Amino acid sequence: MGRVTERRRVIRIRDGAVSTRPDTLVAEEPLEIRLNGKPLAITMRTPGDDFALAAGFLVSEGVLGRADELANIVYCAGATQDGSNTYNVVDVTLAPGVPVPDITLERNVYTTSSCGLCGKASLDAVRTTARWPLADGLGDGAAAGGSAVRIEPETLSVLPDRLRAAQRVFDRTGGLHAAALFSPDGELLDLREDVGRHNAVDKLVGRALQQGLLPLSGSVLMVSGRASFELAQKAVMAGIPVLAAVSAPSSLAVDLAAETGLTLVGFLRGTSMNVYAGEQRLALRTAVGGA
Amino acid sequence: MGRVTERRRVIRIRDGAVSTRPDTLVAEEPLEIRLNGKPLAITMRTPGDDFALAAGFLVSEGVLGRADELANIVYCAGATQDGSNTYNVVDVTLAPGVPVPDITLERNVYTTSSCGLCGKASLDAVRTTARWPLADGLGDGAAAGGSAVRIEPETLSVLPDRLRAAQRVFDRTGGLHAAALFSPDGELLDLREDVGRHNAVDKLVGRALQQGLLPLSGSVLMVSGRASFELAQKAVMAGIPVLAAVSAPSSLAVDLAAETGLTLVGFLRGTSMNVYAGEQRLALRTAVGGA
Repeated sequence: MGRVTERRRVIRIRDGAVSTRPDTLVAEEPLEIRLNGKPLAITMRTPGDDFALAAGFLVSEGVLGRADELANIVYCAGATQDGSNTYNVVDVTLAPGVPVPDITLERNVYTTSSCGLCGKASLDAVRTTARWPLADGLGDGAAAGGSAVRIEPETLSVLPDRLRAAQRVFDRTGGLHAAALFSPDGELLDLREDVGRHNAVDKLVGRALQQGLLPLSGSVLMVSGRASFELAQKAVMAGIPVLAAVSAPSSLAVDLAAETGLTLVGFLRGTSMNVYAGEQRLALRTAVGGA
Repeated sequence: MGRVTERRRVIRIRDGAVSTRPDTLVAEEPLEIRLNGKPLAITMRTPGDDFALAAGFLVSEGVLGRADELANIVYCAGATQDGSNTYNVVDVTLAPGVPVPDITLERNVYTTSSCGLCGKASLDAVRTTARWPLADGLGDGAAAGGSAVRIEPETLSVLPDRLRAAQRVFDRTGGLHAAALFSPDGELLDLREDVGRHNAVDKLVGRALQQGLLPLSGSVLMVSGRASFELAQKAVMAGIPVLAAVSAPSSLAVDLAAETGLTLVGFLRGTSMNVYAGEQRLALRTAVGGA
């Protein structure tokens, strides 16, 4: 884990005064994910939890859903011309019988960007591949293999501080996104940090897969930044019913949440928050109109 | 430009009080970039300046460097099954004689992620494809086709406020990254906002290409967030000699800056900033040791 941060010389300017000192930076390196030996995607990530990252990426893409579908993950030796192991290339081998996705050029474009051709098409694609419907708690009685999550706004209010307190690498570098899983009563279950927010979520989901915890139907996903379509998609694919973000969601994230039954909370800051979809999972004391 | 933001109903919770109101969200939709009719990449972006985004992406990838290398950019009608134009697919046609990159599967993986196979390989790739060396002002006398940029730390200090003041969509949504070009004396030349920070930079660079302004050897690029490898790479590919960021750089961004001669400033906040590389372009009143 020594590569999570790196030291570099920095020139510090404070009110005109110039000094030189060592600085701690968050490490960023590319990770190539291969599937059964073939290149699938490259992501810029902070080294560490690479196998979980690869596994979680494949959950997000609908390839993996259970630990026993994953046969093996290894670092590829000899990925460079001089034959050394850079620890920047991993190869995932699927268990026998698990369908290998069609990695054509078009498919690959789809895969590496984690989105579809257009808003509508990508929403369709997520609905098609999601293994675990998020219908619980939405009042249609279709609780899918798990107890319905209900969460108090007061519980959500404490999550940002708990997330921030657990961000150890951020404290040293100021350069990481964080994603954490919480229980509905606000207990921190797991937290990952990465230069890429999508990687932090993939690492969480991949570890859950490896531990046999998917779908994460009793969890709340909290992210340190904004809620993009991609993060909402990853929550849905992992069966996570609640996504809470410190900052703003995008239009497509809200649309996806509404379509799939994901509870989406944005601008979560202290006792203030906005609920964009799936409000049925929140214990609101005041009746909400305009449904 | 109506699609830059979208309205959605939101449930607002403030200290336990619940209300429903319309909210303005930043729009996020996928853009597929085709090159001479073939799919090249998909990016999640905020609609608007799509042709500039496509052109700038191709500058970052080393395909385009001059306006006359670009024959045409159009929205593709009929990209969906029902034949409608989603304005989410653009096709770029290169001018006759401009080399079309080899879009194999492996190459495509490279392209869509904007990075190479590993840190070293990607640094090599950038050096190979960059058309405009950034050597000016670095004391080796290799000024490349333009006057050397020198900038006062006091000038850098005012850029974040000027960037923030010009962020019109952020004010309404809180959901966008911004990138801006400034002159060395602090004049705002252009600003773009997008849900993706890399898109904001591509839009700036693409517009500059269309206006015949590349290389941007007399410009400072300021970004609202962190300085990743990808953003540093885009600055280098556009010939921009100075990249300043409000937040932290990554290790690989610093390495790339040091290798290419890019001036990289991070944590630019008021009169406080850190200089990670290329300090020769900064007019520092105090001698700096430890080179």
